[in-house]
Amino acid sequence: MRESFHGDLARLGEQLGAMCGLAAEAMRRANRALLTADLQLAEEVLTGDDQLDRAREACEEQAQSLLALQAPVAGDLRTILAAVYCAEKIERMGDLAAHVADAARFTHPDHAVPAELEGVFTELGEIGAGMADRVGELILGDAEGGHAELDETDHAVDALHARALAAITKDDWAHGVQAASNLALLARFHERFADQAVSVAKRLEFAETGRTSTT
Amino acid sequence: MRESFHGDLARLGEQLGAMCGLAAEAMRRANRALLTADLQLAEEVLTGDDQLDRAREACEEQAQSLLALQAPVAGDLRTILAAVYCAEKIERMGDLAAHVADAARFTHPDHAVPAELEGVFTELGEIGAGMADRVGELILGDAEGGHAELDETDHAVDALHARALAAITKDDWAHGVQAASNLALLARFHERFADQAVSVAKRLEFAETGRTSTT
Repeated sequence: MRESFHGDLARLGEQLGAMCGLAAEAMRRANRALLTADLQLAEEVLTGDDQLDRAREACEEQAQSLLALQAPVAGDLRTILAAVYCAEKIERMGDLAAHVADAARFTHPDHAVPAELEGVFTELGEIGAGMADRVGELILGDAEGGHAELDETDHAVDALHARALAAITKDDWAHGVQAASNLALLARFHERFADQAVSVAKRLEFAETGRTSTT
Repeated sequence: MRESFHGDLARLGEQLGAMCGLAAEAMRRANRALLTADLQLAEEVLTGDDQLDRAREACEEQAQSLLALQAPVAGDLRTILAAVYCAEKIERMGDLAAHVADAARFTHPDHAVPAELEGVFTELGEIGAGMADRVGELILGDAEGGHAELDETDHAVDALHARALAAITKDDWAHGVQAASNLALLARFHERFADQAVSVAKRLEFAETGRTSTT
């Protein structure tokens, strides 16, 4: 029975890992839709978001049934509660990717991101999606040191976020108030996406080691 | 033992209820700091936020120990998992109130909210804080119907959020790009605060009744 229990736990990890892949892909596609003003792609991301919502529900049901049937304690209990926590954060990453896609849809056929900020937003999307992928690896492998690593990456995201805000509030900003307000929100969606990845890495590491690495 | 277990569950509910009170108070104070450009009050809200962080950790530890020691099933298990979920959401409400306070600090000695939007932001703060209080009542009382009720209130928040965004993107906006970008983010913090309250109400109702009321 314990062996089957640990098989169930491993399957829960695989479900979470797959959710990370979905979140990474959603962010990549949403950001491409944003940068190319691709309405159809934006709508695909928005429609696809319920896949992550359902995956999260499945994780939670699986966790609940493990708790009820196996009454785990100590490390196993910590792992299951961490899985529930992480599933919620990863679902939220999908929501934030969908917000990016929604902004692309809202501004279409115009481009939400002016040429001088394309580099910043390209990087924000790539780093964010990479963080989601990395969290998936931490879930399936060894989470130790993961928090410090993701936290370090998050500093790069914060710096890009600050660059975007600085650009839209400079005196020579030429694209008007609406574009600036949209971009402030968009930069925040990216920043929050990365924050969720850091939270997941922190929680995974704590569940695995009882400690959290810091930078 | 079961009696003491249900006493422990009731205490967990009281902890959550107290967290709602803290979140409501944080939002009231943050919004007052925002509308009166009160730097000291803003800083108090920011410093006070760790009280909610600690309260949430205490809830989670309490839940974990109940799971380990009592191995609850069915409704009791659902209640404990709901408590963990809600504690996280209520902590997030505190974070969002702190973001409002941070915006007040950032723009001080200037006022972040121009006169023509004071009414909208006053209402956003009052409704949000009232939702946090109401969620506290749902936790300590009967959660049935709570989701539909909070969801209805949330429509008012969404309408105010839309009014704020419409004002800052109108052609005659007279306060510049930086103020507009700040206000777009501020309106979003309020909207997200209300969203968390709705999530908590939904989860409470589901844990209590196995269903969710809709509007």
